[in-house]
Amino acid sequence: MGSAYSGAAVIGQSGGPTNVINQSLIGALLEASKYSVITDFYGALNGVVGILKENLVNLRAENLDNLELITRTPSSALRSVRKKVTKDECKVIFENFRKHGVRYFFYIGGNDSAETAHIINEFAKDAQYEFHAFHIPKTIDNDLRETDHCPGYGSAARFVAMAFMGANLDNLSLPGVYIGVVMGRHAGFLTAASILGKTRKDDGPHLIYVPETVFEPEKFLADVEQAYKKYGRCVIAVSEGVHDKAGNPILLTLKKDVEKDDHGNIQLSGTGALGDTLSQLIRDNLKISRVRSDTFGYLQRCFPTIVSETDAIEARRVGEEAVRAAVGGRYEGSVAIRRVSNDPYRVIYEVVDLKKVAKHTIAMPKEFIEGNNYVSDRFIQYAKPLAGVLPQMGRLQNVSITKM
Amino acid sequence: MGSAYSGAAVIGQSGGPTNVINQSLIGALLEASKYSVITDFYGALNGVVGILKENLVNLRAENLDNLELITRTPSSALRSVRKKVTKDECKVIFENFRKHGVRYFFYIGGNDSAETAHIINEFAKDAQYEFHAFHIPKTIDNDLRETDHCPGYGSAARFVAMAFMGANLDNLSLPGVYIGVVMGRHAGFLTAASILGKTRKDDGPHLIYVPETVFEPEKFLADVEQAYKKYGRCVIAVSEGVHDKAGNPILLTLKKDVEKDDHGNIQLSGTGALGDTLSQLIRDNLKISRVRSDTFGYLQRCFPTIVSETDAIEARRVGEEAVRAAVGGRYEGSVAIRRVSNDPYRVIYEVVDLKKVAKHTIAMPKEFIEGNNYVSDRFIQYAKPLAGVLPQMGRLQNVSITKM
Repeated sequence: MGSAYSGAAVIGQSGGPTNVINQSLIGALLEASKYSVITDFYGALNGVVGILKENLVNLRAENLDNLELITRTPSSALRSVRKKVTKDECKVIFENFRKHGVRYFFYIGGNDSAETAHIINEFAKDAQYEFHAFHIPKTIDNDLRETDHCPGYGSAARFVAMAFMGANLDNLSLPGVYIGVVMGRHAGFLTAASILGKTRKDDGPHLIYVPETVFEPEKFLADVEQAYKKYGRCVIAVSEGVHDKAGNPILLTLKKDVEKDDHGNIQLSGTGALGDTLSQLIRDNLKISRVRSDTFGYLQRCFPTIVSETDAIEARRVGEEAVRAAVGGRYEGSVAIRRVSNDPYRVIYEVVDLKKVAKHTIAMPKEFIEGNNYVSDRFIQYAKPLAGVLPQMGRLQNVSITKM
Repeated sequence: MGSAYSGAAVIGQSGGPTNVINQSLIGALLEASKYSVITDFYGALNGVVGILKENLVNLRAENLDNLELITRTPSSALRSVRKKVTKDECKVIFENFRKHGVRYFFYIGGNDSAETAHIINEFAKDAQYEFHAFHIPKTIDNDLRETDHCPGYGSAARFVAMAFMGANLDNLSLPGVYIGVVMGRHAGFLTAASILGKTRKDDGPHLIYVPETVFEPEKFLADVEQAYKKYGRCVIAVSEGVHDKAGNPILLTLKKDVEKDDHGNIQLSGTGALGDTLSQLIRDNLKISRVRSDTFGYLQRCFPTIVSETDAIEARRVGEEAVRAAVGGRYEGSVAIRRVSNDPYRVIYEVVDLKKVAKHTIAMPKEFIEGNNYVSDRFIQYAKPLAGVLPQMGRLQNVSITKM
C-alpha cells in the first residue's frame, strides 16, 4: 500500500463473455469518475490486443443512458480476446501506456486474465514504472480461486436452471430420456445448477454428472434404467467435461472416430457429439425408444434478460471495488467475494494478491457432490442465492374422474 | 349451426408443447364455466390416450390461483401425445364419451390434432352421436392452414430472436463464424425469426437458410466468405430442414455415414450433426479458424418466461373462442386468427371447418424470402408483432483515442 499514482486508466475485457461482464466495466468506469487521480478512463478494444495496437476508446465520452443500457446488454461491450502476453509484448504495452499517461490497468476476466495482469504488473515493477494492476473476476465456470463465487456464474446458472425447468416439463408431457449437455470442462458448478429449479420430488434432473467424478458408462446405464423405472422418464444433466478414470473425455472412450480440430483437441462445446453418443448408448443398451439430447452451447452465457439480480449487483461491485482499492493506494490485486452469511445472503469484498488467482483454477468441493450422479443440499444452499429467485411453475392437481 | 347440446366437455393437448399451450387450455376451461350447457369440464391426460384409457381429470376441481400459475407455465399441463386415432379407437372413445356424458371435445394441437378431431367428429356423425368437436391451434412451426399465424409460434420466435441477439453480441466480441440451427423441418418461420432482434446493419444473423429454398453447399460457402469479408465475422441461422434439390436433407448430401433411427429417419432435431457438418464444411473450404455451432433443440419451445405477450393473449383467446363457437351451436371447427391491421396490430377470430386445417401444412410464402439466404421486410412486418417487443441492446460509441 502506498499513495495512488495520478494518471489515466485502461480497462479491458477478456475470455468468454457473460451476461453481466458489462456491469463490471461500467461499475469501474463510474466509480473512477469520483477520483481526480484517475485523469482519463480508456477502454481497450479486444483486451490486451487493444493496448498492443493502441485501439483505445474514451469511455468518458459515452452517454450515461447508453451506459446503463449496456449494463443490461450481454457479452463484452469492449469486445474480447483469448490471449496471454509475452515479455516482448509487455514492452510494447508499457510504451503505449507511457505515451498515453496510463497508470491504472483493470482487466476483467478469468484466471488467464489475472495472470496477464500479474505478468504486466511484474514487468512494471522491473521497469520501475509507477503502476496499479487489477483483475476483476468474471467467469461462468465459477472456477476462480480465492473468491466464494465468480460474477457471471449466477446468471449462467440461472439460464441452466431455467432450461432444465422447461426441459423437465417438456419431458413430463412427452416422456422419455432427455440429456442436457452443459458447459464446464473441469468444474461442474454450472452443470450442478441444473438442480436449482427443482421443486417437486419427481422433477428432473434426476441424474447429474459433473467432471469432478469419474464417468462410468456401465454405471450411467444402470442409473438411467433405475430412474426411468421409478419416474417413467429421465432427465439428465451432463457436463461437457465428463471423463473416464484416466481423465480422457468420455467421448473418446465411447467413440474412436471422433472429430478433432487442427490442434488435435476434441471439440467439446457447441457440438452435439457427447449428447448424441450418450443417447445412442442408452438406445443400444436399454429398452427406451424416445431419447433426446440438447447441447446448451453458447446460449447459456449470453441470453438476453436471463440475468440473476444478485449476479448483476455483484458484478457491478467488483468493478467498483477494484477502482477503490487502486485509488486507496494498493498497487495490484484481484477482487474476491466473501460470503458472510447465507440466510440472509450477505457478502463482503476483499482484494487479494494477483498471483493467488492467476494460473490455477478450482473444481467443485467434494461436499457439493452426492454419489457420482447427483449434487448435495450443500451445493443447493451455496448456489441458490447466486442464481436468484426462479419463476414458479404450476402443475395441475389432476383430480381423477372415476372410471366406469 | 344449430342449438348446443348439453353435456360434459373433454379437452386434451397434443403434439410438441409450447410456452403458451396452457393459456388455451385455461381459456377454454374458464370460458366454459359461463355456460350451463357445459355441465362438467374434464381434462384428458396425454391427449386421446387419456380418453381411450379413461384417464380423465376434473378440471373444475382446480384452484383458480393454480390455474393462473399454469397459464405462465410452459409445456402441456395435461401432458401430451403424438397419435392419430383409428376407427376402432374411435369406437372406444365414443363408448367412454357416452359413459361420461361428454358432448364437447376440444383438442389443442397442430394439423394432426385437427385431423384427429375431424376423424372423431365424422365418427360421431355416422353414429348419430350429438357432439361438438373443436380444434384449438397450437404449433411453434406456424405451419397451419387458414390461420394468419399459430399460437405458440410468437413465443418460440421470441426465443429464437433473443438467442440470436445474444449470439450476435457473443460473436461480435469473439469474432468467427457462428451457426445456430433452428427447429422447423418444412417451414422456415421459426428460423426466419432469427432476424427480429436485429437493429444495426452489421448485426447478425447475416445469412438465413430456410427449407423453402434449395440449400446449395457451394453457394453457402460463397455467401459465408462474402459476409465474413464484409463484417469480419458471420452469424448464420439455419433451419434443421434445409435440403438439396431432390429434397434430401443436406446432412445426407454432405455426409454419408450419418446416423439413422430405427425407422430409417435421420435424427434432425436435438442433435448437433447438421451444425457440426456445416462448420466442418466451412473449416475445410474457407480460411476461417473459429467456427462454432449450436443446435437450439428443445430449449426453444419451453423456456420459462420467454413468452410473447401477444402470443399469450391470443393463445388464451383461441381457447375461449372454440368454446363460444360450440355453445353458440356450431358442431365442429378450428379457430383461425385473421389479421385485420398490422399497424396497429389487430386481429379477429373466426371458426373454419376442421377439414380445412387437418392433414396439410403450409410453408412460408415466397414474398417472405429474399434470395436464398435471407428473409424479406415483409416477413419482418408479419412476425414482429407476434414475437412482442424485444429487449434493447446497447453498444458503446467507441470514441477512439488518437494513436501516438
